[in-house]
Amino acid sequence: MANPLTPDVLLDPVVLTRALVDIESVSRDEKVIADCVEDVLRRADHLSVRRLGNTVMARTKLGHAQRVILAGHLDTVPVNDNLPSTVVDDLIYGCGTSDMKSGVALALHLAVTLPDPRYDLTYLFYEAEEIESEFNGLNLVAQSHPKWLQADFAVLLEPTYGLVEAGCQGTMRVRIRTAGRRAHTARAWRGVNAIHAMGEVLRRLEDYHPRTVTIDGCTYREGLSAVRIDGGIAGNVVPDECSIDVNLRFAPDRSEKQALEHLQEIFHGYELEVTDSAPGALPGLSAAPAREFLAAIGLEPAGKLGWTDVARFAALGIPALNYGPGDPALAHAPDEHVEIGKIRDGSATLYRWLAP
Amino acid sequence: MANPLTPDVLLDPVVLTRALVDIESVSRDEKVIADCVEDVLRRADHLSVRRLGNTVMARTKLGHAQRVILAGHLDTVPVNDNLPSTVVDDLIYGCGTSDMKSGVALALHLAVTLPDPRYDLTYLFYEAEEIESEFNGLNLVAQSHPKWLQADFAVLLEPTYGLVEAGCQGTMRVRIRTAGRRAHTARAWRGVNAIHAMGEVLRRLEDYHPRTVTIDGCTYREGLSAVRIDGGIAGNVVPDECSIDVNLRFAPDRSEKQALEHLQEIFHGYELEVTDSAPGALPGLSAAPAREFLAAIGLEPAGKLGWTDVARFAALGIPALNYGPGDPALAHAPDEHVEIGKIRDGSATLYRWLAP
Repeated sequence: MANPLTPDVLLDPVVLTRALVDIESVSRDEKVIADCVEDVLRRADHLSVRRLGNTVMARTKLGHAQRVILAGHLDTVPVNDNLPSTVVDDLIYGCGTSDMKSGVALALHLAVTLPDPRYDLTYLFYEAEEIESEFNGLNLVAQSHPKWLQADFAVLLEPTYGLVEAGCQGTMRVRIRTAGRRAHTARAWRGVNAIHAMGEVLRRLEDYHPRTVTIDGCTYREGLSAVRIDGGIAGNVVPDECSIDVNLRFAPDRSEKQALEHLQEIFHGYELEVTDSAPGALPGLSAAPAREFLAAIGLEPAGKLGWTDVARFAALGIPALNYGPGDPALAHAPDEHVEIGKIRDGSATLYRWLAP
Repeated sequence: MANPLTPDVLLDPVVLTRALVDIESVSRDEKVIADCVEDVLRRADHLSVRRLGNTVMARTKLGHAQRVILAGHLDTVPVNDNLPSTVVDDLIYGCGTSDMKSGVALALHLAVTLPDPRYDLTYLFYEAEEIESEFNGLNLVAQSHPKWLQADFAVLLEPTYGLVEAGCQGTMRVRIRTAGRRAHTARAWRGVNAIHAMGEVLRRLEDYHPRTVTIDGCTYREGLSAVRIDGGIAGNVVPDECSIDVNLRFAPDRSEKQALEHLQEIFHGYELEVTDSAPGALPGLSAAPAREFLAAIGLEPAGKLGWTDVARFAALGIPALNYGPGDPALAHAPDEHVEIGKIRDGSATLYRWLAP
């Protein structure tokens, strides 16, 4: 197959977005798009290129004091009758338009058209972000080639609708069980009802007042939510077990350990089983490239509420933020689309920041 | 097949219990046992016999002022490696020994050996008590041959371990749903958590103080139990629906309508969906044959806590009680058994009451 990412296509981030979208690349099926991207990068003399699986890394070696990573994942969620892309007025429709091939297009366009950026740049186009962590290209690089990720600052081109979302909240899920004693409901007093016993847990959930925390000008609003409850044996049996799953979203000033301690305090007297946990990421906007990025874009940053791969950079000690043209509300939707104006704005902003 | 219920077997209620147990008769497979029972009854000149499906009715027509029903179901729960019967010391083991072929044996023994009882007697040996109500022989007779059930008093020979259990509690199950609004747990404040909203329902369950009611010397202890709770969509979604099933066991001084009103009062502000309901039965121990039965047995009656077919008699205006040699705790158990002494005691008691 001829590489659809021709020099002409690469010159226009809008055209490039469509071309990338039209290379189908559902998670675990990124070989074709990774081949095309690698081929393009290898033609650029100012870049040195490496590959791991279907993750492609390219970087300048200009000897600048500061290095910045621009990163985007190549995979998409499963196609949902929304390929190839279509254009209606100012909108490009199709799987991956928002999440996040428009962001990938900004980075790839920069990679081939900006040979002399004001910082050294590392471009990371990685696989399998939409699925289990064990397949995540960024995760795999961190494990086997951590030097590829050495930098002072990172921008992840995830959809933010042109806003700056810095850091991210952590998430922890715990399971709480109540125990009782079975009995026939005709002799309910001989039993202990484990569902009734869950009333106290629900009371603590209702009484909980989540914090709102501001860090580096970014606001993080915490939350504590029951996400599942389950109990009962039969219509005439006092149940002896009930369980509930609770999800804490916590601001990045708490570590995972501190988040668990907080949950243990809320649910004092109950045993907590942690079923899922991921750390938050501090916004880390004090590094020079971060401050210069914010100056270039001219917008106040906001705290990212969901969890994204910026937390992986944070875990490596690299301040990171999300900035991309897509609308996060459209990610994974069948009518996923991106505004052409947002792509042009994003491209102009990155040039303003990175051009010499 | 020769009828195993020979004249010799019929003379001894213990031997008869074993013979009945050894005729396998799981619900919906009662033809053989009903044939054997009908055959035996038709040989007794003092009885007139009728049949409906696998339900056999036999009655005396002596012109007494009072008529008493003795009733027992012929079916059992599925055999559980516990047939044919075995005898160990004073115990007969096997499917149906307790529930309720030992009770059936008492009635069948009486039917063929007591031609001149002091009341007119109606014997009912009926099918399909252990399964859905639509198959229940007593229910079918009530619908199509209500005259067979005309009587002043009924004894149901269900297992009570030789005690008298009068009337029975009613049961009602209702479903309560809480509604909310879905949201990502990272933005929990945009949603309304339906599981949290169930806290108030659990609080009312915890705060509920069930009544204990005494009627005709029988004590009924009510109970209100959550028997199922279910809610949750995904680990990162504020759920918009949660539902709970609650079972009220109510004393027979409440009708079903009053039981529902009581539940509506407890759960004021919530919509209740009735998913199951069966009325209780008043003990009704003031009828002459009932008083004479209690005098013959010399025991105080107790309230029946579970639901039994006595409620069907009560619905027809016939006072009824449970009295049988089996142990109710062993009903449906793989090691189901009956004490031979309890069979002999029960037989002697019924003779004392019914002999001229």
